[in-house]
Amino acid sequence: MITLTTDFGLRGPYVGEMKAVMLGLNPKAIIIDVTHSITRHSVLEGSFVMEQVVKHSPKGTVHVGVIDPGVGTKRRAVIIEGEQLLVVPDNGLATLPLKHLRPRRAYEIDFERVRKFTRRAISSTFHGRDVFGPVGALLDAGHAPEEFGNEIDLDSLVRLDLEPRMEGDIWRLRVIYVDDFGNVILNLENYERPRAVELPDFGLTIPYLDTYGLVEPGELLALPGSHDYLEIAVNQGSAAERLNLKVGDEVRVKLL
Amino acid sequence: MITLTTDFGLRGPYVGEMKAVMLGLNPKAIIIDVTHSITRHSVLEGSFVMEQVVKHSPKGTVHVGVIDPGVGTKRRAVIIEGEQLLVVPDNGLATLPLKHLRPRRAYEIDFERVRKFTRRAISSTFHGRDVFGPVGALLDAGHAPEEFGNEIDLDSLVRLDLEPRMEGDIWRLRVIYVDDFGNVILNLENYERPRAVELPDFGLTIPYLDTYGLVEPGELLALPGSHDYLEIAVNQGSAAERLNLKVGDEVRVKLL
Amino acid sequence: MITLTTDFGLRGPYVGEMKAVMLGLNPKAIIIDVTHSITRHSVLEGSFVMEQVVKHSPKGTVHVGVIDPGVGTKRRAVIIEGEQLLVVPDNGLATLPLKHLRPRRAYEIDFERVRKFTRRAISSTFHGRDVFGPVGALLDAGHAPEEFGNEIDLDSLVRLDLEPRMEGDIWRLRVIYVDDFGNVILNLENYERPRAVELPDFGLTIPYLDTYGLVEPGELLALPGSHDYLEIAVNQGSAAERLNLKVGDEVRVKLL
Repeated sequence: MITLTTDFGLRGPYVGEMKAVMLGLNPKAIIIDVTHSITRHSVLEGSFVMEQVVKHSPKGTVHVGVIDPGVGTKRRAVIIEGEQLLVVPDNGLATLPLKHLRPRRAYEIDFERVRKFTRRAISSTFHGRDVFGPVGALLDAGHAPEEFGNEIDLDSLVRLDLEPRMEGDIWRLRVIYVDDFGNVILNLENYERPRAVELPDFGLTIPYLDTYGLVEPGELLALPGSHDYLEIAVNQGSAAERLNLKVGDEVRVKLL
Repeated sequence: MITLTTDFGLRGPYVGEMKAVMLGLNPKAIIIDVTHSITRHSVLEGSFVMEQVVKHSPKGTVHVGVIDPGVGTKRRAVIIEGEQLLVVPDNGLATLPLKHLRPRRAYEIDFERVRKFTRRAISSTFHGRDVFGPVGALLDAGHAPEEFGNEIDLDSLVRLDLEPRMEGDIWRLRVIYVDDFGNVILNLENYERPRAVELPDFGLTIPYLDTYGLVEPGELLALPGSHDYLEIAVNQGSAAERLNLKVGDEVRVKLL
Repeated sequence: MITLTTDFGLRGPYVGEMKAVMLGLNPKAIIIDVTHSITRHSVLEGSFVMEQVVKHSPKGTVHVGVIDPGVGTKRRAVIIEGEQLLVVPDNGLATLPLKHLRPRRAYEIDFERVRKFTRRAISSTFHGRDVFGPVGALLDAGHAPEEFGNEIDLDSLVRLDLEPRMEGDIWRLRVIYVDDFGNVILNLENYERPRAVELPDFGLTIPYLDTYGLVEPGELLALPGSHDYLEIAVNQGSAAERLNLKVGDEVRVKLL
């Protein structure tokens, strides 16, 4: 099984081209489109989305992620091998999925070796079709990561700084995702369940409950959400709009 | 074959998570994405879309539908077994697909039994991934509905009131769907083909023809459409905008 | 392998209905959704997208394209057989994919013969589900094109006029595609690499470079792109917006 997470959009030929090449190399591949609508160039949003899918995928799954503002520059293309496999640009996209992968080894992809399989030139603007997709398809077909490049140090991989920080009794958190409904997801996991949450930047204290419907429509709440991260929401409304928050923003939070 | 109809949107991890879980439980499943862009919480729109797909699917197809504003509350999750299978929240979503299913039995899904298969906690906000998707995948793999819950009375299923009503010679109809093109679909089937249609609420009489191109661009017409329901359209335009109609609205119609 | 390129949109039941019918006729089909978001009725945009996918697909692939403003009128439905197969309305959609197909024969689809396979009426508004999809599924399953209609002259196929023209030293080109990022793709291939490009309509001369990141954010450039056609772009911005260009527009270009 191969999953695809990209910012290519759904209007163009890009997704079709990538999948045609992949199925040409591995006709039996089962390809899951996670999303092709990551906000353009948002490596953090892509990292969150890939993490969620990794958490729910069986061992051996190959995850291809292409949010790649540096395509055509010197950023590395890498394979990360653990219980599942990641095929991504080395720009921080792997940060969150790595937490669930038990990574054992990483490899820098060598384009010349990829070309021996695909027998095509590698464009300088579309590595999803020319590098990441083909490598993912071939890994799923049973090829070994070392056929595509040399091993590199796991510690050398680019990582986004997403550790939650505490100042006194206040967490300094970041918005790591805003879903289609405007629910705001923060980088805090494994916390003790509070009875309420204070947001000092907004002068607000909101209840912490199990699900949206437990407050009136239009009211704010905090909740565990379905992703194990602390979530801020408005029942039948958008917390992101209400609080004017977007992916990457900092938020101070006090658990009560 | 399993079909998926949801209001999850295409930007987030939701669809990918659900499909990863399903393929983990049933690696050979053929999954068709019908749409993940049902208007949020529009059970009526989802019911129409699922009906159309049921009408054109082979026997034995499993249809998973998740438009579920009541997730986390006491609404039932059900399996409906007929020539095809539905796995849906019991909130009226099954109303229109049921017409084509020759239903034999229904079951209320017991979450504890589902957990024995998935070996995961069931979140209070994402039953698509944790309940409906897994049950659909396991039914498609050959498990029997009774493995997931106890039989319930078919008559106890929640149904939307979508019977067309007549007052004198005027039909009181409801808009059950507005497509991307703005064509308005009404809940009237199996009517005798009229030569024209009067819309008394709008002071309009419009021709009834076979296809859009038979009136001038910008002109209104009624037609059989491709869904067997009475359809109101504007050639190369939007009838929904012209008449200011949306899903759920009432419209009076006289067939001439 | 079957690819689908349509303007049906992703909100409705259309794609699901079409795929349900196809898999009913050919349960082993591997169906790739290229896109269902071609601009409504834009045969030129659809032709470009199909061309890119044909270029990267293996021999024997069946490409079903449904951008079909003339559905229900007398336009022909055709199969074009070469190294790959096209199943499309005969309205010019095949123009660009045909360049890569080595076409050998074409057939006009006879609806009565299709009905013998599908055993359903053919609607006058949805030939994707009732004609093109089923024929594509059956061709992929091994049926021969002549089972669906009589041979027609390849030269009789409708073609869009997409030959680039030269006036003095200035190319008169057309915009054949604008991607999600606003990059503008012009109908000029196989040109000698210039050092810069003059756009006399805009009083601009812009550099010709390998990739977007080689100019400052917000700056215009020309580049080879990933589609072998001349492309005009703005680094981290939209060339289509900057120059107010859309698919079908004419642009004069001088290679320096």
